[in-house]
Amino acid sequence: MIKVTVPATSANLSVGFDCIGLAVDMQSKFTFEHNSNADLTISGCPSEFQNEDNLVYQGFKAVCNAIDQPVPKLSIQIHTNVPVSRGLGSSAACIVGGLVGANQWFDLPLNDQELLEIATKMEGHPDNVAPAIFGGLCMAFVDSNQQVQVVKYPVNKALQFVAIIPNFKISTAAARSVLPSQMSYPDVTHQVSHSLLMTHAVETGNLSQLKEAMNDRMHEPYRAKLIHHFDQIKAICNQFNSVLYISGSGSTMMAVTDQPTIKAQLVAQIKAAFPEWQVVPIMVDNHGAKSEVL
Amino acid sequence: MIKVTVPATSANLSVGFDCIGLAVDMQSKFTFEHNSNADLTISGCPSEFQNEDNLVYQGFKAVCNAIDQPVPKLSIQIHTNVPVSRGLGSSAACIVGGLVGANQWFDLPLNDQELLEIATKMEGHPDNVAPAIFGGLCMAFVDSNQQVQVVKYPVNKALQFVAIIPNFKISTAAARSVLPSQMSYPDVTHQVSHSLLMTHAVETGNLSQLKEAMNDRMHEPYRAKLIHHFDQIKAICNQFNSVLYISGSGSTMMAVTDQPTIKAQLVAQIKAAFPEWQVVPIMVDNHGAKSEVL
Repeated sequence: MIKVTVPATSANLSVGFDCIGLAVDMQSKFTFEHNSNADLTISGCPSEFQNEDNLVYQGFKAVCNAIDQPVPKLSIQIHTNVPVSRGLGSSAACIVGGLVGANQWFDLPLNDQELLEIATKMEGHPDNVAPAIFGGLCMAFVDSNQQVQVVKYPVNKALQFVAIIPNFKISTAAARSVLPSQMSYPDVTHQVSHSLLMTHAVETGNLSQLKEAMNDRMHEPYRAKLIHHFDQIKAICNQFNSVLYISGSGSTMMAVTDQPTIKAQLVAQIKAAFPEWQVVPIMVDNHGAKSEVL
Repeated sequence: MIKVTVPATSANLSVGFDCIGLAVDMQSKFTFEHNSNADLTISGCPSEFQNEDNLVYQGFKAVCNAIDQPVPKLSIQIHTNVPVSRGLGSSAACIVGGLVGANQWFDLPLNDQELLEIATKMEGHPDNVAPAIFGGLCMAFVDSNQQVQVVKYPVNKALQFVAIIPNFKISTAAARSVLPSQMSYPDVTHQVSHSLLMTHAVETGNLSQLKEAMNDRMHEPYRAKLIHHFDQIKAICNQFNSVLYISGSGSTMMAVTDQPTIKAQLVAQIKAAFPEWQVVPIMVDNHGAKSEVL
């Protein structure tokens, strides 16, 4: 039996729209076994996903195709706490789970970069699959040769994250539809310079610099309006001198502080205000997807 | 007598429009002495700049004002090889020269960050004055509190630069007028992701990554048309697998390679094709402005 663990991922980080993602230690677990009864059995997910269209299976199959091997009869078990359509990379986790599972199944014929290339084609963009594979904070894009370029930034241990997961979804399509199509030149320079400061502040763990850097003009001012109570969450974060960004296209928001005591206070206060929401103190996953043969 | 040395600076580096600059070891030298004959004497520059409007003197005066000291009677000598209006930060060098000279004159009351704040106000933007003060590759911008944020990236010693300085000027106004006012969202993400790869490649010295990163959509496609023979220079650089970017708003172009032999070949070939131009093999200045009391 093969067991795969894949971190959830939080994309954009304010000023890294569509090219930056962070791996966090909210894990999805997948097991893959020979199936003697049927071509495919999938458990651990809603019944509408228990078929060949399942992304974990699609990922597995993509590796089989890439290395020219027949797809084995499979029993796949999925165990995940990553909520769907909340901006925590649930689809990326499934794709990467399938890819890494198949790669382990066939004794690691592909390296991480090759897995990333396949994952990016399947997901359509690399900003969640890159940190899901490599861990940490990753900048990734498809270059002019159709290769995926990745820069991995080490995340300073001083930074403490809290995932604030509302009890409602935001569809990526809706989150895209509220965005303008153009930006002014000064705003582009703003985005470029602030993304450079953001990646630097994440490395150094300088919270006040991170706060200054996470000042987005590209998506957050528009998407914040789609997230009910965003302003209230923002006010709580400001009160504790912590930084808030929208994870992916929402609805999850991520708070960042550098004080464990403040982290605990943030969790308590937001939980009290929104008892229906999940408020999860969370660590960075610096390792990325892991696989083992049991 | 006080002697100040300030590096020339090459801004933008392709995908760092209006926020990134590189210090190079083409030095401007300034001396400051008590003047017993007149309030101000300036030598070493065209006569129209030998007056109180001179940027070196203006810089000196700005420090006097900041620390509430009267401006002394000064004799200023300027010795610079940095060509004017060629995209090598000649005005930034003068401003920083004056600031650093005055700071040394009064026994260093201000730190580099304070000098940067003054220099940025004088120059209007920090992308040349930041590397002129700090050296190396600097990203800099004025933040929401009107403070200048700077990230300094160490430049890998493997990278070799050649400054290609045409025998014609391009005014910053003309170079601005050819730019559009807006960019599409995918192009903004392109700029952000490529600037992150560029700063990374400069640190690691990975030339092929730098080549992929220096793929600008913001100013170079428009400004290249203002630089006669740009395409010919670009073709020579491609032939030697080196990267070319427009320094500041031009007319200077900067070629980057990682092979000293190729650097020499580039210089020879471009000099042969354009004997009226300056073609200067150049090193990065990692130290920034220096001052000493003689």
